[in-house]
Amino acid sequence: MVIVTSQKITQEEWDFLCKKLEDWGFQLNVIQGVEKKVIGAVGDKRRVDFQFLESIPGVEKVIPILSPYKLAAKDARPEGTLIEVGDLKLGKGYFGVIAGPCAVESEDQIFKVAEGIKKAGAKGLRGGAFKPRTSPYSFQGLEEEGLRLLSRARTQSGLPIVTELMNLTELEIVTEYTDIIQIGARNMQNFGLLRAVGRQPKPVLLKRGLAATIEEWLMAAEYIMAEGNPSVILCERGIRTFETATRNTLDLSAIPLVKSRCHLPVVVDPSHGTGKRKLVLPMAKAAVMAGADGLLIEVHPDPANAWSDGEQSLNLPEFQDLMEQIKVLVQLEGKKM
Amino acid sequence: MVIVTSQKITQEEWDFLCKKLEDWGFQLNVIQGVEKKVIGAVGDKRRVDFQFLESIPGVEKVIPILSPYKLAAKDARPEGTLIEVGDLKLGKGYFGVIAGPCAVESEDQIFKVAEGIKKAGAKGLRGGAFKPRTSPYSFQGLEEEGLRLLSRARTQSGLPIVTELMNLTELEIVTEYTDIIQIGARNMQNFGLLRAVGRQPKPVLLKRGLAATIEEWLMAAEYIMAEGNPSVILCERGIRTFETATRNTLDLSAIPLVKSRCHLPVVVDPSHGTGKRKLVLPMAKAAVMAGADGLLIEVHPDPANAWSDGEQSLNLPEFQDLMEQIKVLVQLEGKKM
Amino acid sequence: MVIVTSQKITQEEWDFLCKKLEDWGFQLNVIQGVEKKVIGAVGDKRRVDFQFLESIPGVEKVIPILSPYKLAAKDARPEGTLIEVGDLKLGKGYFGVIAGPCAVESEDQIFKVAEGIKKAGAKGLRGGAFKPRTSPYSFQGLEEEGLRLLSRARTQSGLPIVTELMNLTELEIVTEYTDIIQIGARNMQNFGLLRAVGRQPKPVLLKRGLAATIEEWLMAAEYIMAEGNPSVILCERGIRTFETATRNTLDLSAIPLVKSRCHLPVVVDPSHGTGKRKLVLPMAKAAVMAGADGLLIEVHPDPANAWSDGEQSLNLPEFQDLMEQIKVLVQLEGKKM
Amino acid sequence: MVIVTSQKITQEEWDFLCKKLEDWGFQLNVIQGVEKKVIGAVGDKRRVDFQFLESIPGVEKVIPILSPYKLAAKDARPEGTLIEVGDLKLGKGYFGVIAGPCAVESEDQIFKVAEGIKKAGAKGLRGGAFKPRTSPYSFQGLEEEGLRLLSRARTQSGLPIVTELMNLTELEIVTEYTDIIQIGARNMQNFGLLRAVGRQPKPVLLKRGLAATIEEWLMAAEYIMAEGNPSVILCERGIRTFETATRNTLDLSAIPLVKSRCHLPVVVDPSHGTGKRKLVLPMAKAAVMAGADGLLIEVHPDPANAWSDGEQSLNLPEFQDLMEQIKVLVQLEGKKM
Repeated sequence: MVIVTSQKITQEEWDFLCKKLEDWGFQLNVIQGVEKKVIGAVGDKRRVDFQFLESIPGVEKVIPILSPYKLAAKDARPEGTLIEVGDLKLGKGYFGVIAGPCAVESEDQIFKVAEGIKKAGAKGLRGGAFKPRTSPYSFQGLEEEGLRLLSRARTQSGLPIVTELMNLTELEIVTEYTDIIQIGARNMQNFGLLRAVGRQPKPVLLKRGLAATIEEWLMAAEYIMAEGNPSVILCERGIRTFETATRNTLDLSAIPLVKSRCHLPVVVDPSHGTGKRKLVLPMAKAAVMAGADGLLIEVHPDPANAWSDGEQSLNLPEFQDLMEQIKVLVQLEGKKM
Repeated sequence: MVIVTSQKITQEEWDFLCKKLEDWGFQLNVIQGVEKKVIGAVGDKRRVDFQFLESIPGVEKVIPILSPYKLAAKDARPEGTLIEVGDLKLGKGYFGVIAGPCAVESEDQIFKVAEGIKKAGAKGLRGGAFKPRTSPYSFQGLEEEGLRLLSRARTQSGLPIVTELMNLTELEIVTEYTDIIQIGARNMQNFGLLRAVGRQPKPVLLKRGLAATIEEWLMAAEYIMAEGNPSVILCERGIRTFETATRNTLDLSAIPLVKSRCHLPVVVDPSHGTGKRKLVLPMAKAAVMAGADGLLIEVHPDPANAWSDGEQSLNLPEFQDLMEQIKVLVQLEGKKM
Repeated sequence: MVIVTSQKITQEEWDFLCKKLEDWGFQLNVIQGVEKKVIGAVGDKRRVDFQFLESIPGVEKVIPILSPYKLAAKDARPEGTLIEVGDLKLGKGYFGVIAGPCAVESEDQIFKVAEGIKKAGAKGLRGGAFKPRTSPYSFQGLEEEGLRLLSRARTQSGLPIVTELMNLTELEIVTEYTDIIQIGARNMQNFGLLRAVGRQPKPVLLKRGLAATIEEWLMAAEYIMAEGNPSVILCERGIRTFETATRNTLDLSAIPLVKSRCHLPVVVDPSHGTGKRKLVLPMAKAAVMAGADGLLIEVHPDPANAWSDGEQSLNLPEFQDLMEQIKVLVQLEGKKM
Repeated sequence: MVIVTSQKITQEEWDFLCKKLEDWGFQLNVIQGVEKKVIGAVGDKRRVDFQFLESIPGVEKVIPILSPYKLAAKDARPEGTLIEVGDLKLGKGYFGVIAGPCAVESEDQIFKVAEGIKKAGAKGLRGGAFKPRTSPYSFQGLEEEGLRLLSRARTQSGLPIVTELMNLTELEIVTEYTDIIQIGARNMQNFGLLRAVGRQPKPVLLKRGLAATIEEWLMAAEYIMAEGNPSVILCERGIRTFETATRNTLDLSAIPLVKSRCHLPVVVDPSHGTGKRKLVLPMAKAAVMAGADGLLIEVHPDPANAWSDGEQSLNLPEFQDLMEQIKVLVQLEGKKM
């Protein structure tokens, strides 16, 4: 790392700083600049807290050179990671589509969706049983009953299921039923939850937080991987900006950027990312061309009667149309679906 | 609420929409505008999902008229709420300062701080035992040992303690030791945690999320209150913006705004809000004049050797100076300390 | 528009408000809600200032129903607008690529680029003569000499040219040389400049401001059109968000959104939008699929020696590769190039 | 500056890079790190374009050590700058209040305001003659007639006047009438305008752009100063964030931060910063305590009938009340008013 010292650093402060760095095993290279002294500290000490270093008197700025994540870093597996659950394959040249309703509402609803999306070519079924809702007065999901319905839909359709885990207390029951555990955007830095899903073997779909930088997102993946679970799927779902015309701003440039720094598969959720049904198709197509390894699409047999997020759900014919257009693009990108 | 329909709404869509609204108990007032028809739907139906309504074909926009929170709303208690724990009083004309280190590190450290801040006039002691850290490789807190040290510091100093609860699984142990439960910014929409602290009687200090609107923040308070706990302290600690010169952008205008809409006390954390030691004093003073009911200040006996967030901690003489300046301002504002 | 009044509005305030609205020619529809009174004011009064209305005592919120732009609105020309300059065609089923260096540096440079991009299929040549630079000490462009070089490159290549107008004082000279006038992101709300280019006949390429909402962007187009110039090309070039890994956040969802509200062609600048050479190709491809009518690409014969923005410029072989990939996608979208 | 090279840099790229740096007069210090090589390049070359350097193959990141501004930097005048126009004094221990309507509307209006604010203790009169408006259909100001009215109000009241310059073409007429030239937020990076006001002697009040970082703001001041005008007043007026409850987010932490890096006076505009009349007083008081050297306050004799921005204007009694509260705080801060 590089440490820029203040113009007014005293000799005493300088000595204290150098001693600290040497105690931590760094080898120091001092550069006397025009106005300021700079230290190049060599040594791979990811555990040293940069913010702490900045509090040492006389230090102006600390600039890390190495990325703070190791297991998630591209270099750890340059060929990329393939995550495979049943017929769903994501990454390393495989593209997969996961679809389903925002919330599981009834057997009839989830069965209809599962059947419809399977026919259209989806390889995974998503559906919320425990729902994070801004208002305590909104519908909060069918909870365990929702999990059971999902599980029956899997048996019937053969599609692996993806559902959100919101609380540590529901870890056991959710992992019992689901094939892939979703960590929602609001929980991206719920570190207890990240550690817990890192200690079990099922793949984790990790949504990017609304205000999370790409580095924080990769650090959240690192939390899971550091506990022993290498199967993390990153999901871009829009960030919060000043623009209010869309629900969020879908950051598609995050896809090629993440893929240049990290070996994990990246999928995109254009339904939450835009919040508007009419934007789902163009943004899904754009996501494929930006290099995504898969999509997460909200589909409801009857969006106008959905219990939540109906305004961003496709109906089955719309989803079928999307899949047909997507297939051509995936092939063009040289990926298998 | 007001429903704006699309210019191209069909008769069938119009009939479906009106029937839905009437089924939910709304009384309809139709206004034929120049280009569009607008419906004023009268009825207090906070549970109706606005996003759902927007998915009905022919609907362009739905505009809620009533605020989505009730228990937290100013009207529910126009005189304001006083929260009182030992000598710490917040709200309704009382101003309190809570101080302490980012993380509890040792008995010596926490005892020194407790003694020092008490002498300076603080009425509460803060300290982290379980720490949310961006990196899995950073120091994560002393955990239960940290809680025990805090508890001993309380016995010795008489100051009530505030510490963060990060996970549902630690609810029992944290509530056993602490006087006020802190919910961190990253957990502001961890709804399971909000419900859980709503079902126990200790006051909750609810930090605003990095990307949370004021309405979402008040809805998070509503989650806690809806479970039966009326004692919520709101804490502004900076939001995430494009500016990188400060760690966050401390949104002081949130104070008078929240106080015009909500009866709960609002405190400010200028330490996390700015991330820079030199900005803590001016922003603390500014917070008092913006109408805050209290402050949360990071204090460490030796910031240069702190294990975390040292770059934003005051040492004890700096804190004493802050308290002296603050006292004059609090008095000027007609509040008691 | 809909006017929500405060719960505590007095009779006197109410009478004043209703009289004002009637004086302006609105027809009033009063809805007595559960807690508040709401007025539906019918009449197309785009000139009434909503912010002004909100300052009338007793008024809580004013919600416009009609969009504030008329000439730019989709309804004004539902079939879309085609802008045609030489062989460059944008909109209404036509897709065009404009390419060139950030800044014109020399005859050799601009001639090489013009020839190279033409061969690859570009239909327009861009290049900066007057450059907006954050630092007064950075290279500010060749100014008139740059315009002359561009003009010679046009003669030689036959490609129409696009260059930025920064100041009213340079209006004459820039319009004399250029075919399309670019208004940069920093000038999107330079209203004097907008009016001036609205009073001359050449097409205007209007970049979205770094912090401009889509509505403000369309209002800026309306400024130009209101002066009589109907030929506005909108250019998405990234917005400013908290993310620092990319120079800006390219908001591709703005494309389908704008196209649903406005009849003007929309082009995308992935070079400025990302600030990183490696992201240009994937984001260009994504832009086509999101519905763009064209692209603006920075190309330099020798990016490592460019005088500005070299880190985001493609070299000629990279650009050729991009064009080949783009052509397939444009065809797939059913557009002509 | 510090240059981090890529792990995969070739010998050829390395040689090219080192030669370039040496050609520019830098002295190189190479540090061989664990994974990457880092170059400390010593030499004060503010004119070298960092973005350009990042485009050289093999370069991963370039980190400037010196700040990019020199004339605006604190070190250039550590004792601070006092700007004095008539009785208005800003900076170096002096605090001044400038007040007036958003737009000049009539002789009666501006005379009433001038008289009223003078009595209350304001030392400067603000008023818009040329108004930047989002919509081309909104009132755009009285233009030259407005300047004449302002000028008469100055003669009558003795208060120096502040008014906005929007276009280079109005430079002469605006400078003829005004005492301080205001550059609005939307023009903060209108570099032609900055240069022009830098070449004339009247002080310039430079508003921070909606999406401008503090560094960009100081660079805009540097543009003016680099042309020879040292009299720049910085004005914080709120930045654009995701929060919509206030018009902008007033960034008070910018005050102490700027004052630690720059010697120019900083004033705050809580009227535009919040957009809400009720927030003006608390935020004005907070601004004083955050270290501001002055305030810009919108005052209108009859806000409910103002032609623009009435919802954020104080009436005269409200302004008088504000001034009385402010005076106490300014004294407490050890400043003269």
